[in-house]
Formats: sequence, structure tokens, C-alpha cells
Amino acid sequence: MISEGTIKKARHSSMLLSMATNEHKNAALKRIIESLEKNSTLIIDANKKDMEAADASQLAMALRKRLSFDEQKLSDVITGIRMLIQLDDPSGKILSATSLDTDLVLRKVSCPFGLIGVIFESRPDALVQIACLCLKSGNAVLLKGGSEAANTNRILKQCIESATASFAAGWIQLLESRDDVNEMLKMDKYIDLIIPRGSNEFVRYIMNNTSIPVLGHADGVCHVYIDAAADQAMALAISCDSKCQYVAVCNAAETILVHSAVAPVFLVALKAELDRLNVIIHGCKETCRILSVPFSSEPDWRTEYLDYKVSVKVVNSLNEAIEHINTYGSGHTDCIVTNDEQAAAQFMNHVDSANVFHNASTRFSDGYRYGLGAEVGISTNKVHARGPVGLEGLVTYKWKLTGNGNLVADYAQGKRTFKHKKIS
Amino acid sequence: MISEGTIKKARHSSMLLSMATNEHKNAALKRIIESLEKNSTLIIDANKKDMEAADASQLAMALRKRLSFDEQKLSDVITGIRMLIQLDDPSGKILSATSLDTDLVLRKVSCPFGLIGVIFESRPDALVQIACLCLKSGNAVLLKGGSEAANTNRILKQCIESATASFAAGWIQLLESRDDVNEMLKMDKYIDLIIPRGSNEFVRYIMNNTSIPVLGHADGVCHVYIDAAADQAMALAISCDSKCQYVAVCNAAETILVHSAVAPVFLVALKAELDRLNVIIHGCKETCRILSVPFSSEPDWRTEYLDYKVSVKVVNSLNEAIEHINTYGSGHTDCIVTNDEQAAAQFMNHVDSANVFHNASTRFSDGYRYGLGAEVGISTNKVHARGPVGLEGLVTYKWKLTGNGNLVADYAQGKRTFKHKKIS
Repeated sequence: MISEGTIKKARHSSMLLSMATNEHKNAALKRIIESLEKNSTLIIDANKKDMEAADASQLAMALRKRLSFDEQKLSDVITGIRMLIQLDDPSGKILSATSLDTDLVLRKVSCPFGLIGVIFESRPDALVQIACLCLKSGNAVLLKGGSEAANTNRILKQCIESATASFAAGWIQLLESRDDVNEMLKMDKYIDLIIPRGSNEFVRYIMNNTSIPVLGHADGVCHVYIDAAADQAMALAISCDSKCQYVAVCNAAETILVHSAVAPVFLVALKAELDRLNVIIHGCKETCRILSVPFSSEPDWRTEYLDYKVSVKVVNSLNEAIEHINTYGSGHTDCIVTNDEQAAAQFMNHVDSANVFHNASTRFSDGYRYGLGAEVGISTNKVHARGPVGLEGLVTYKWKLTGNGNLVADYAQGKRTFKHKKIS
Repeated sequence: MISEGTIKKARHSSMLLSMATNEHKNAALKRIIESLEKNSTLIIDANKKDMEAADASQLAMALRKRLSFDEQKLSDVITGIRMLIQLDDPSGKILSATSLDTDLVLRKVSCPFGLIGVIFESRPDALVQIACLCLKSGNAVLLKGGSEAANTNRILKQCIESATASFAAGWIQLLESRDDVNEMLKMDKYIDLIIPRGSNEFVRYIMNNTSIPVLGHADGVCHVYIDAAADQAMALAISCDSKCQYVAVCNAAETILVHSAVAPVFLVALKAELDRLNVIIHGCKETCRILSVPFSSEPDWRTEYLDYKVSVKVVNSLNEAIEHINTYGSGHTDCIVTNDEQAAAQFMNHVDSANVFHNASTRFSDGYRYGLGAEVGISTNKVHARGPVGLEGLVTYKWKLTGNGNLVADYAQGKRTFKHKKIS
């Protein structure tokens, strides 16, 4: 089991990281690339062991695909690190500065959290991505990957560790068991943030079992709303892309809402296209009047299918669509298709979700597509970070005040007065 | 007891508020000023009732002072609202914009949380301040004040409500009992943020009894560290101001750390000055060797005295001071007094607190002094808002993506490529 000593060491190491310049951090990232390249055979061999064990235990094909770490995946993660090196340092940025008085300057400065715990799924490439995001943002990290990937994760962690040992020993630690995770959740004295990735059930378990702040998304019940003023061809294309471009992800659409004015024509076209794509429609009462599809009841409106299934509901107004989304959605990503700018503005202001789209597929909701570089996850929290979370989600800020012996008594007694002049 | 219907109505009203322009919100704030001025006699009479009840129940003098709401306090809150009107709208700001492609624009836009629950202490002026901060930031609010101030709070809420009824009916609601609070803590479906103000014990109770995000500070164990390279006169003045300028507040210093190189001389001067100010020193072993003061043990290092008492500890290095603060402090506000710029930088980077000061009193840690306008509280959270929280702490953001029928499939298949061009 992971010891308190190891976690304390990681915490201490985070202080060294927090002082590192962007140049030093980028140099460390370059050494990680070299180490991964030099040890590629060892890494791929370790992954073969994990894959053999996966074969023996008859792991599902989708999971096997995620678990695999071949030359292509190695090359992809290295490309990712190269992109990360190009990005600005998110830490040490002066977010605002105010001259409170001639000799009293206040600066709001971004800084790393300190020590972050990340629990991720079976993809070993996630280990490298997350570790490098933490390093670039100046945070130490405790990593818990899928147990199916134990051999691959161990060698990847060793490569990263050996490449950075002289830089900040102990900053990266690997957790190997569920017991380790439960131990980590108790360490609120040393750990500043937990990022869990995985099933809804798992994320909720983490949230309910720690007093450490959790940055996690609960689920993705995303909507496409086809407005009365929608371009029907565009509406059809966006509906299909949002639903089918990749069904197993949180930003795939689960419900299509259709304005009653266009429903009779649009729904027939939608069904033809979704039939072709092997998607089963679960329809509301009105939809079932127009199409011959299974009837869907209220629980369906809350369901994240992650499958070739979609709920379809006819609504009588924009407001009914907004109301439906705010009631049954998960605050992840919701889209309106319309040529009516005012309707689009109302939808985007009133839908209470992290990502609100006008005439674009819900599948764009992603850190890479947003240009954030890489993402640690997609947050449906409203506090701290919302939507795709890149490097900026891994830093907080502190207020630095520099004075010359300034006393509050002097200002309280009127001997001195505040200037509050913004410094740009 | 407050009904789910009332809370739902407040939630619905928050949608109207979120769409209001700065001009409309400022006009509503002006009507609140007029209403408070017009009803000043009613307000002051209601407060007299509360004060009489306080007399009858022999409320402590400090609490009576906070409870009182006279012409002066009314004039002060009105000045506060006038300042609020001058401030920028924190909502609707474009925080960043990126052209993902020629016809696909992503904007990160600040927006209100929605519905905020605030639980505050006995000061009725806090009701007006908090309500107006929520209105300016576009949030609906549930308010629970001290029961001692029930009559004053009721009339103040009525004044605010009647002045804004045509603007957004139901946006402000008053909770009157502990049962109401417990009911509110369960309403995670409607409420986005809880801000509790009060004792540590109370704030922790709230945090442990709701799944709604809580913005609250736990306690303020603030430090002043007198470095070997400190100007001794400045160190003495900052120590006394930090401790005594107002002892009953979270940003008052509770521990003074003194470098051993200057301890023999500095401690004698410090004791003479603190004796004069009636402050009792609790000293570490080394302090007790130099001064004749009560011995302090480890529990004292964690104590928020809020009184004319201070812990004093001699340390052998800057690092020992940093280590002490990160171990026993509460992450609130900590100050180094030194003429050594490098020591100051190390202290400010390594002390893991919301506010880190160089040569300035800890008492500056305050929203008004920081120039934030007014503050809803001081956060020792690391997520979302840290340190004094003004209007900016009452907004979150959403990602708005505007396209022209863009599909992810086109980018995945290489038919189109992302541009990711920053728009300024």
C-alpha cells in the first residue's frame, strides 16, 4: 500500500516544481521524450504482457483497443508532448495587478495546486498525457491507472521518473490498488485536487468519499434542438454527427428535440438517415404518432445511452426545449440548430450547460478541438473549471502583496488613503 | 418552512436576471437605494425591536454592536451600493475567443451561477450588501441571516423586493429558521453555490451536509514571520498592526515567527510593545528562555485566538518558517518582514496560502482594501475563488460555439482542418 511518507515526499517535491521555470519544465519534457524513445522496445514488450493477460481474461474488444500501446500510440503521445512544450506556462501569470497605494502593490498570480491525484481508465497513453500536463503546470501527481495496464503503466512511469529524477525526485507516484485509492482519498492534508475519470458511478463514488475537491464530470446527456427556423439539411447532418460520429463518448448526443412546426417532415427524414446508421429511435408520444418507433418514457430523457440509440421528443417552443434540457440534461453540451439569431442567443444564454453550441455538432466539445492543447477531462462542475479542462484547470492563484511596512491602522485613521490604481 | 416551490421560483427568476444588461441592473440598484431611503424610519424602528429583544436576552455587547442598524449604517450601505453601481458587470465578459475554423468561433464567456444560498451572521447590513452583489452579478439569492435580526432583515428584504419586483419577481428569498437551512442544503437540483459565513464549526457543518459546492473559509490562523534581514522597527509595527488593529477578525495574526538571529533583541522589544497593548504572548521553549511568558505547546500553533493573545515561536531558518506555516496555518494570509528580496520571493512562492505578503500587515487581506468593491467572504479554498471574493467570485463561465453546420466527421476524415486562431 502507498505510504503517507511517499505522499508527503510527492507533496514536498511539488514545492520544487512550483519554482521551476518554463525552460526547465520544457527541458524535462524533452528528456521524457528521449526516455520514451530509448525504451520503446521495453514499453511495447510490457504492453504485450498486459495484452496477453487481457486475451486470457477475454477482455472486450473495445477495452483491448484502449489498452494497446504500440509504436503508433507511442508516436502519438510524443507528438502530444511536443505540442505541450509549445504552450505557454500556465503558472506564474500575473492575472491582475493593482497599486493599492504608492508603495503597496497587489498582484494576483496563477500558481500550481501542489499535489494532484488522478484516477484514469485503461489507456496507458493517458498516464503519459496526464503526467506531462501536471509537470508543465508545476504540479506533483499521484496516478492510478487501470489494473489491466499494470505492466505498461509501471514502465511508462519509470521512464518519466528516470528522465526527471534530477529535476524533482518523487514528483510522480503510481498507485496500484483500490486500497491505495482509498488511502489517497483520506490525505486531504497533502492532496489539493482529485481528478477521477471513468464511469459516472465511479466518479460519484469518489465525490462521496473524500473531502478533497474533485474535478470530475458526472455524465453527458447532450441534446440537439432542431428549431422551427432550422435549415433542415444542416439539422439532419448535425443530428447524425452528434449521435454517431463516435457513440461511446460523453459529448455524443443522447436526445434530439424537434420543434412541432417542423416535426412532421423532419422526423421522417431523420428516421430514414438513422435507420441507415443503425440507430434506434425512442420516441415521445408525438414522435410515435409520426413514426413507427418504440415509445420512450421519462427515464429515457435522463439516460446516457453511449450506444446506437437516441431519444426523440417533439416540443412546442424554444422555451420548452430549454426547460427540457435544464431539467433532464447533465449540463455538459447542448446544441441549437436554427437560422434565427435571437433564438440562438436565448438558447445559449438560458441553457445552463458548460458548452452551448449554435449550428455545430456536440462532438466539438473537447480540449483538443477547442485548441487547449490536451485535456485532463471535461468538467460539468460550475466552480473552478467548466467544460474541457486543459492546463489552465491545473492551476489556481494566490494574491501577492508587496509593501514597505504598510499598516492598516494608518488607513483606518485617515493618515493614508487607498489609490486602487489598476496596473496593466 | 421554505417550500420547494419558492426555491424553484427563485431559480426561474435567475434566468431573467442572467439576461439583464448592466444598465438594467444598475437601475434596479438605484431603485433599491430609493426604497431604503424612503423607508428609513420603518427600517430603524424594526431594528429597535430587535435591539430591545437583544437587551432582554442580554446579548453580548460585541453582538449588539453588529446587530444595530442606525442612520449611519444605512448611509454606509447606500454608499456601498453606489460604489457597486460604478463597477463593471462581471457577467457577459468574453474571457477568450478562438476561431477554430473560418466558420467556427469559440467564446469563453462569464455568466452568473444561477441561484446562490448565503448564510450570514447577525449584521443586517450584510443582507443588503450580499443581495446587491448577487443582483449585480445576475444571480438570484436565498438569504439566511441571524435570528436576532429577524425584524430588521424582514423589512430590508421587503424594501429590496418591492424595488425590484417588476425587474425579476422572486429573485430574493428570506429563510427564517434552521429547518429552512437544512431544506436548502438538500436542494442541489436548484442551487448552484452555498456561501456560509460564521464560525469555523458552522462552516464545516455546512460543508459536511450538502453536495452543493460551498465557498467558505474555514479559519484564519495567520502568521507574521520576522526574517533575519528584517527592519526591526518595521517588523514591530507590522506585528502589532497585524495582531491588534482589530483582533476579532480572520485576517488578524495569531502567530509571530522570529528568526533566531534577531530573536534576543526583537523579542524584548516586541514584549514591551505587546504589554502596552495588553496582548499576552504564548511562547515556544526558546521564547520562554528570552522572555518571561506562558509556555505554548503545539495546539496553540493551530489556534485562532481572535483575542489579545499571540503565539510566538523562534525558528532557525526561512525554510523552518515556511514549513511551520504550511503545517499549522490555515492557508489564509501570511506575511514576511525582510529586506532580502530573495527571501521574500521564496516565502511568497512556497507558503501555500491564499494571500502572501511582503512587508505589509496581514490586515490588508480584505475585498475593500484589495479594491474589489465589496466582498462576499474570504475563501481558503484553492478551487474557484481564493482569498477575498468580490463580484468575480459570483460568476462562472460557459463555452459558446457558433458554427455553420460544422461536423466533427469532416475534421476526423481530414476534409477540413482546425485553425485555432486566437481572436483578441
